[in-house]
Amino acid sequence: MLGKIALEEAWAIPENFKAYDVSSLAPKGVIGGDLIANLLDIHGTRLTQMDQNGVDMMVLSLSSPGPQGVTDPGEAEQLARLANDRLAGEVVKNPARFAGLASVSMHDPVQAGAELRRCFTELAGFVGVIINDYQSAGTDKNTMLFYDTADRRYDAFWAVAEELECPVYLHPREATPLIFDEMWKERPWLAFSALGYAHRVGMHALGIVTSGVLDRFPRLKLVIGHMGEHIPYDLYRIDHKLNRARFPGMGMARDKLVRDYFGEQLFITTSGHFSTPALLCAMQEVGRDAVMFSIDYPFESIPNASVWFDEHVPISNRDLVDIGRNNALRVFKRLTTGPHGLAEKSPRECGVGGLKAAAGEVEYGLYNKNWDTRLERQ
Amino acid sequence: MLGKIALEEAWAIPENFKAYDVSSLAPKGVIGGDLIANLLDIHGTRLTQMDQNGVDMMVLSLSSPGPQGVTDPGEAEQLARLANDRLAGEVVKNPARFAGLASVSMHDPVQAGAELRRCFTELAGFVGVIINDYQSAGTDKNTMLFYDTADRRYDAFWAVAEELECPVYLHPREATPLIFDEMWKERPWLAFSALGYAHRVGMHALGIVTSGVLDRFPRLKLVIGHMGEHIPYDLYRIDHKLNRARFPGMGMARDKLVRDYFGEQLFITTSGHFSTPALLCAMQEVGRDAVMFSIDYPFESIPNASVWFDEHVPISNRDLVDIGRNNALRVFKRLTTGPHGLAEKSPRECGVGGLKAAAGEVEYGLYNKNWDTRLERQ
Amino acid sequence: MLGKIALEEAWAIPENFKAYDVSSLAPKGVIGGDLIANLLDIHGTRLTQMDQNGVDMMVLSLSSPGPQGVTDPGEAEQLARLANDRLAGEVVKNPARFAGLASVSMHDPVQAGAELRRCFTELAGFVGVIINDYQSAGTDKNTMLFYDTADRRYDAFWAVAEELECPVYLHPREATPLIFDEMWKERPWLAFSALGYAHRVGMHALGIVTSGVLDRFPRLKLVIGHMGEHIPYDLYRIDHKLNRARFPGMGMARDKLVRDYFGEQLFITTSGHFSTPALLCAMQEVGRDAVMFSIDYPFESIPNASVWFDEHVPISNRDLVDIGRNNALRVFKRLTTGPHGLAEKSPRECGVGGLKAAAGEVEYGLYNKNWDTRLERQ
Amino acid sequence: MLGKIALEEAWAIPENFKAYDVSSLAPKGVIGGDLIANLLDIHGTRLTQMDQNGVDMMVLSLSSPGPQGVTDPGEAEQLARLANDRLAGEVVKNPARFAGLASVSMHDPVQAGAELRRCFTELAGFVGVIINDYQSAGTDKNTMLFYDTADRRYDAFWAVAEELECPVYLHPREATPLIFDEMWKERPWLAFSALGYAHRVGMHALGIVTSGVLDRFPRLKLVIGHMGEHIPYDLYRIDHKLNRARFPGMGMARDKLVRDYFGEQLFITTSGHFSTPALLCAMQEVGRDAVMFSIDYPFESIPNASVWFDEHVPISNRDLVDIGRNNALRVFKRLTTGPHGLAEKSPRECGVGGLKAAAGEVEYGLYNKNWDTRLERQ
Repeated sequence: MLGKIALEEAWAIPENFKAYDVSSLAPKGVIGGDLIANLLDIHGTRLTQMDQNGVDMMVLSLSSPGPQGVTDPGEAEQLARLANDRLAGEVVKNPARFAGLASVSMHDPVQAGAELRRCFTELAGFVGVIINDYQSAGTDKNTMLFYDTADRRYDAFWAVAEELECPVYLHPREATPLIFDEMWKERPWLAFSALGYAHRVGMHALGIVTSGVLDRFPRLKLVIGHMGEHIPYDLYRIDHKLNRARFPGMGMARDKLVRDYFGEQLFITTSGHFSTPALLCAMQEVGRDAVMFSIDYPFESIPNASVWFDEHVPISNRDLVDIGRNNALRVFKRLTTGPHGLAEKSPRECGVGGLKAAAGEVEYGLYNKNWDTRLERQ
Repeated sequence: MLGKIALEEAWAIPENFKAYDVSSLAPKGVIGGDLIANLLDIHGTRLTQMDQNGVDMMVLSLSSPGPQGVTDPGEAEQLARLANDRLAGEVVKNPARFAGLASVSMHDPVQAGAELRRCFTELAGFVGVIINDYQSAGTDKNTMLFYDTADRRYDAFWAVAEELECPVYLHPREATPLIFDEMWKERPWLAFSALGYAHRVGMHALGIVTSGVLDRFPRLKLVIGHMGEHIPYDLYRIDHKLNRARFPGMGMARDKLVRDYFGEQLFITTSGHFSTPALLCAMQEVGRDAVMFSIDYPFESIPNASVWFDEHVPISNRDLVDIGRNNALRVFKRLTTGPHGLAEKSPRECGVGGLKAAAGEVEYGLYNKNWDTRLERQ
Repeated sequence: MLGKIALEEAWAIPENFKAYDVSSLAPKGVIGGDLIANLLDIHGTRLTQMDQNGVDMMVLSLSSPGPQGVTDPGEAEQLARLANDRLAGEVVKNPARFAGLASVSMHDPVQAGAELRRCFTELAGFVGVIINDYQSAGTDKNTMLFYDTADRRYDAFWAVAEELECPVYLHPREATPLIFDEMWKERPWLAFSALGYAHRVGMHALGIVTSGVLDRFPRLKLVIGHMGEHIPYDLYRIDHKLNRARFPGMGMARDKLVRDYFGEQLFITTSGHFSTPALLCAMQEVGRDAVMFSIDYPFESIPNASVWFDEHVPISNRDLVDIGRNNALRVFKRLTTGPHGLAEKSPRECGVGGLKAAAGEVEYGLYNKNWDTRLERQ
Repeated sequence: MLGKIALEEAWAIPENFKAYDVSSLAPKGVIGGDLIANLLDIHGTRLTQMDQNGVDMMVLSLSSPGPQGVTDPGEAEQLARLANDRLAGEVVKNPARFAGLASVSMHDPVQAGAELRRCFTELAGFVGVIINDYQSAGTDKNTMLFYDTADRRYDAFWAVAEELECPVYLHPREATPLIFDEMWKERPWLAFSALGYAHRVGMHALGIVTSGVLDRFPRLKLVIGHMGEHIPYDLYRIDHKLNRARFPGMGMARDKLVRDYFGEQLFITTSGHFSTPALLCAMQEVGRDAVMFSIDYPFESIPNASVWFDEHVPISNRDLVDIGRNNALRVFKRLTTGPHGLAEKSPRECGVGGLKAAAGEVEYGLYNKNWDTRLERQ
């Protein structure tokens, strides 16, 4: 479909690589192309591929872990500010095609709120904020600052996000050295995007929900990627086992289920998990309103994500266009205003549906646009 | 869920039984209760069961075939007028709970439009119109008047329906004697609601779409029941085989597919087909916006339809409430105004979702609200 | 996948075109290639395309309506015999790749049984029988002979099919002139494969089941194409409405539902209906054991059907291979013996599953086998 | 359905409570009934509820963590032996209804294999083995012994399991104190069955698969509960991200995907996760052959699990009976021999399908077995 909006799309500045050696994620050739070059690029290859694949808008964010990987508070704050200034500068060059998620250091919730406010009021082009799971702290990088603590310390931050109507994208990151050693060192191939990322950020996201953050801030919106970091599939069991009698200290509203937040305050994207059965399951469990298209570029291929979504997903025209575009405009409302000015589109405007068979061709319904020869993609 | 709206709900006046012996449909005991009494009743048993099953609103229509079964034009028109006057009289007694679909004789499209206009401008309580498949004509009842003829004779009627923003519910009816003899007499059990109804009205509905009626009247809305009278399941094949080169005379827009009309101008209801796999398939093919709850009372049981929808349908809170209520208010817009004044509701307002376990009970997720005894419905 | 078996694949002899002008189905260019040439061919283009698309075996049958379109009994019998002799002659040339469904005239059930017996005992290469819906009779072609009549006239035929363990493929055909005029002439584009075929043959198939044929012949197997001719989607409603109290004359076992026959005596194929939502619905309603791959060549494209099944169907490896191959061997058991000698295969043997990425490529899961360029099928 | 087999059903001996205070899992009233009494009981309440809910067979196992919770090797071995002797003694009292999974200490793989061999050769009634995730070791309980280490230390155990054709059920358990403190202490309600159990055992199961254990022991079968501990939903992403170029040390066959093992060597059960969308997703991803019914009694209610499976799961008769019973007999083959002697059953034998309406009742398809009153479960 034309007009797609992608929400979890990474970009980097060289200074970010000090905090985390991105090349460790992907030795050259492991992920297609040159990962670092692709992270640094916005208006070149990236835009060309967006054009070729019907991606209207990429909402960019500093690649993980960003400030969350910086244990020194001052350095983390400085990295966030620097990244935000740079990103604002890039987005204004082409605001019809790019927008940004602000980066924040999460060492100090008040300072994080202030930086977010700066992005939303003094800079242009920001439509939300990204947080890469826990904030690393401590000299050995083993201290994890979580945002769902019982002392409600991070309410100062959540309050600003709610006030600014700024959706919070909770993005995964790697384990601490200690946790890696205890849990993952025997099977490092599972520690990262194959499994570990979802483990940790899914737990954190559920922690935020079940500690009552979304109840205390009822206009706050939380977004998670990778088809919901396992959660939609497990929703029955999660809600079933969050036994209030056994866990009287759980902060979530006593008459609500985790399931109830989806589509209202909790949203998922398809980033990096292009599975049709998972998408169908998610749509059954969390509903069409709670699902949004994303790619996870450059850790995923733009054409691969787009061919899946455009050609393989067996859902109706209207649902496809809502998930591919319109839901993003309802959640990230700033995309509809200011320099971006995007509007919802109909299936027809997105080239979805319609009889595409030209005069010389045959009928609708072709998976292979040639009668007698099996076409290979070339 | 609370707040359900049901759209294909039959009601009758004694005069209608002259045109068609409803008791032939259901010898006493075959369908629960007393079918004729149930058809005649509005404010008694029917309302009680609505209360007991979370049905906020029933949109009533004269039981099939109504005027479509009357071969004499004058008598058919008289029956329509009589039924409309009576229905208006009943609806105003309780417009928060009941509304009506107008009946029309379809012998003369101009007269049908006039009667529809009368219902929408001079009477209260009408939100749409019902047509029971083809109009019977001819002395032997074998003549079928269809509304998708190449001469566009019925455009006079469609124009009025569009102008009035009056959704048209196309409802099934029985076969002519000739067709019954040729096709069904060896297997009469298939001739009616098990199969034959859907055969004929599905064909007619597709005829209306493919002849271009919805293109010529782009604000016209057509509604079909019984989970779409086979069509959602077969949409791929239907669109695939509507080969424009082979059938140059087909009137539908040349760049559209039947699939494209769903959710915009074409809608289905769940009446009488409480199948979860069929609902899931329909949602994939035609989308959440195109599906609306209905029962088909008194040919179906209100509690049976409601237990299915409320307890068995495995879809998300928001999708359930859209299908159970809100979509009906978007299609039948008059339900939101005038004496009815219904408004869209959230899942919470409809009692959907939420932790319902009381203090003494155990956990969420119970299919059987007792730990150790299998409860029977009593 | 490799090793696919296709079951509803048409072939013709010139003599068959006397009974029915196949070219009326498809003016040149409407369906790809030259329909008549493709019907006449077996070992040329057809085999080449089978090789290119992982089709191990095509079970061939004379193109519809075959003898069912011949009103004169003697001529119909002669056509069947001729077609069977010719088909046997072709199949033996390459029995590893082709098998046949016998044709029979259905004017006389005893003669039909005798011809079937001849095919199964005197000729080689037959694994089942095909019947193209009703048998035309009468001078004006308006008489339809059905095989589910209350007088059980056709039990003589069903008994032979059961005795020979010969699955019966019930295939659609066009309407009589009378029915066409009454029902379809206003919308001829719906009369054929888009809708009418399924209407009529679905009714007939359900007639056979509900009249008790499968109960009287409990080892008889009936196969219908086109994803079940609407039936799986409507199973709930069909069973729900086959009310024994209202229809005491219905012959089906009183304690059974139509649903119960699927996977035991009733099977469907995917021929000509390459819809993923329909397949998923069918699998939920009738189960994996009841579904078999087919194409409907040359009315459908071999590559189109194969690309859909091989690349788009989101089901597990084992289910795919059962539907694509192994189920056919369980239903059409003769494929495993005699000159054919086919055996069940594992997913691995069919090339299903497995990491296909070569050293130079990237990861599993590519919908587009190139990182940065959207490939077009060429 | 009648004839169900349940595979992950806990039982305890008082001695097991020394290793783990089960009552901490469920203060009285949190889970229905008296958890400890229910764990200790076999032939009383448990059997009565099995009778009432169509459960033919429960395969019992010592409640988690069993020997895996005992840090002293000798004590762990002693607990395993004691539990196995006791369980054998109970099973022989009613082998048509009960069978056992052996317990083993996993401190020493050779000893574990020897104990397993003892159970399979010297004791009666064992059909598989259960391992409760990692083996606790170390004085502070913080050492986790995993079975997928690069040194292949546990091959000595896997070899015995394969030789004995003994399926291995990998069951979850709680976190070490260290991991609990680091990851879960802020949100203890997520640490157990709501999320943490699946995190840890899912990781371990995937570690076993991806380290190559199933390749080295190609007849070994591994079973995981709770609808696959997240894995089916994430299979695309898992396989997509297990990048061989990035992780050359991963031991799994280089031409296989995790997906390929399901239905062959890897199986899931429904224990404790009675979600229809999750089941449908699992069936699409891992296939019908890989899914088996289970309850997780007494942590789950037998009637609740059974009402879900018997009345709410929208799959075909044959698939239901395979998942509810027959698959278990194919995986746990010893259930078909020796004192148990269970055989596969047809849907009819399991009471699945069939018209159940009695003469006085109405039609098939009732979700509410009364025409006009909404029945409550009582």
